[in-house]
Amino acid sequence: MSATLFTGIGELATMDPAHGPGVGLVEHAALIADHEAVLWTGPSSAAPEADHRIDLGGRAVVPGFVDSHSHVVFAGDRAREFEARMSGEHYDGGGIATTMAATRAATDHALADQGSRLIREMRGQGTTTVEIKSGYGLTVEDEARLLRAAATLTPETTFLGAHVVPPEYRDDRAGYIDLVVGPMLDACAPYARWVDVFCEPGAASAFDEDESRTVLEAGARAGLGLRVHAGQLGPGPGVALGVELGAASVDHCTYLTDADVDLLAGAARDGGPVATLLPGVEFSTRSPYPDARRLRAAGVTVALASDCNPGSCFTSSMPFCIALAVREMGMSPAEALWSATVGGARALRREDVGHLRIGARPDLCVLDAPSYRHLAYRPGVPIASTLAW
Amino acid sequence: MSATLFTGIGELATMDPAHGPGVGLVEHAALIADHEAVLWTGPSSAAPEADHRIDLGGRAVVPGFVDSHSHVVFAGDRAREFEARMSGEHYDGGGIATTMAATRAATDHALADQGSRLIREMRGQGTTTVEIKSGYGLTVEDEARLLRAAATLTPETTFLGAHVVPPEYRDDRAGYIDLVVGPMLDACAPYARWVDVFCEPGAASAFDEDESRTVLEAGARAGLGLRVHAGQLGPGPGVALGVELGAASVDHCTYLTDADVDLLAGAARDGGPVATLLPGVEFSTRSPYPDARRLRAAGVTVALASDCNPGSCFTSSMPFCIALAVREMGMSPAEALWSATVGGARALRREDVGHLRIGARPDLCVLDAPSYRHLAYRPGVPIASTLAW
Ligand SMILES: [Zn+2]
Ligand SMILES: [Zn+2]
Repeated sequence: MSATLFTGIGELATMDPAHGPGVGLVEHAALIADHEAVLWTGPSSAAPEADHRIDLGGRAVVPGFVDSHSHVVFAGDRAREFEARMSGEHYDGGGIATTMAATRAATDHALADQGSRLIREMRGQGTTTVEIKSGYGLTVEDEARLLRAAATLTPETTFLGAHVVPPEYRDDRAGYIDLVVGPMLDACAPYARWVDVFCEPGAASAFDEDESRTVLEAGARAGLGLRVHAGQLGPGPGVALGVELGAASVDHCTYLTDADVDLLAGAARDGGPVATLLPGVEFSTRSPYPDARRLRAAGVTVALASDCNPGSCFTSSMPFCIALAVREMGMSPAEALWSATVGGARALRREDVGHLRIGARPDLCVLDAPSYRHLAYRPGVPIASTLAW
Repeated sequence: MSATLFTGIGELATMDPAHGPGVGLVEHAALIADHEAVLWTGPSSAAPEADHRIDLGGRAVVPGFVDSHSHVVFAGDRAREFEARMSGEHYDGGGIATTMAATRAATDHALADQGSRLIREMRGQGTTTVEIKSGYGLTVEDEARLLRAAATLTPETTFLGAHVVPPEYRDDRAGYIDLVVGPMLDACAPYARWVDVFCEPGAASAFDEDESRTVLEAGARAGLGLRVHAGQLGPGPGVALGVELGAASVDHCTYLTDADVDLLAGAARDGGPVATLLPGVEFSTRSPYPDARRLRAAGVTVALASDCNPGSCFTSSMPFCIALAVREMGMSPAEALWSATVGGARALRREDVGHLRIGARPDLCVLDAPSYRHLAYRPGVPIASTLAW
């Protein structure tokens, strides 16, 4: 396979400790890659030759973003619900039923089309690895349809039958759990790498500790890795459960007890779950932001993801999440970039993405800017895009 | 001139009261325009024929944004200053000297190039009218250079020699004011429509009430319209001065006294200044946001603008400002869109832009979304672009 030398990189964030701490920055850099892997990085002046050469004109290059939490396969529009919420209505997640109804009514083609439109939109903003959850079908057939569509778009597919209790099971929660861990899991596991649960005992339509444990243990028995939605609306048992069961990630972490933070800090040493923060949700629900500084101070591994979904957060922009992390969560631009790349990869237990060390996938995000700092310095401006060559 | 019929507009925000209150919404709409003016708007079903036809596939169309406050002609990068500020340094405007030094050292070509790059970036995000201020030269020759460059990019050029007192006049403020209202104004007025002053008595490098009055009155005598930077860092005399002297806009308005709000409410009835809010500045300086709800409740005319500049706010994105206005300032998506279009036009005393009534300039912003609500519902996502045909 022929290799390409990218020159004129004003600043290259390799995330490679060999190039320095933090984001492993190389200034006036070059990078050689083929379509399988990164082959070389370093200063332009030391670059070997390659078959082709592309000059990036001083632009900064960072690893493609790893968006480890999204719900981009669905149908329906909830812009009016958003508008109502911004006028002061309280958000309790009940709006998911709206998306569920539209999703069930949508054709396979319409679902795949919406998902691929949003994946294209993400790629256009520099995201090169995306996780996609089911959770808007909530029947055996519809959950499987969502995961089949998602699996055409990414290997990082997550079965989230336990997103909410659907209306038809409102008076039979146990029956719904039986369905999720029985026929629904059987139908979905072939298309899923992960299982997830919305563990939020304070929300009537979400799941408590016992229910969440049942779902996660069944998923693990089916060979799936574990993820947990935890602590979005209040502190709860989700973080401890994720740590106990060896989840790859606990997501939201808006509300954490001191004990939760201690558990996550221990997990960072023991290969336990990453804390995945989703600040677009707090932006779009006008909620308090998670305390990233407290987590980092405790030594917790922090990932940033979009949670792109039609209800609580319809951004697909990782640069926007980075800007929010810097403005609202006390992260430095370097820390936020790390969490949006290496952090996301750890949340998906992927070694091959989120960095530009030799052998990494050649997923390059090029910035129309001289420095990665511009991701936060230029909020809302579409400076990031996936480099296609 | 041949006319084009735009069909398949999912939602058209005309800002025309004849089509309804607020944003004058027409669903399933069509619009006919030539390259000079909007000729017809209404429901698709009632659309007359035209020479050409373009189908917008259900996308929403809104007026091109009117960004009535920017500083996009400059040189130099301040990403590291931004990073430092986000780590807790207090911002007092002193960083402008950095941009001043780089700007003075830049060639005319480099200045025009940077300005036109940012204007293209703005157009790519749906902005079709932009105001540009000088204020980084702060010598007779350099201010005139900035305005000559700006005048090649927009008719809405503003002489802001009184941006800060430059270092070489730190001990001779009166001498600098004499320069601004004398030879600098003479050299700049031919290229400027407006004069502006950074009235902020609490900031050592900015201007107090008397100095601001001197600058504005001299500008008015030279035939320029008036604008004022007021109330960014604390309450001050700028709003009252702007109202008294008949400014078109007072900008920032982050800190206002009750008397200021009363004055601005009166101004809304009497053709006095619009209050132009710049929420990107509060985002990028981690400051409290202005209280748009208080202003609207009092009957004040509110505009939204980017303040795009390398120091306190380097966003060029009006959609981002709209999303912030909804999240942080209690505006509805419709109110924020109104302020980013009609409001901005009023801040520039322009009747021909910011709306799509018959006779308006055919400045169309098309959204890759079914509704204008998505401007706030999809924060950070580049869904808006100027329609070129
Ligand atoms: Zn989620
Ligand atoms: Zn300004």
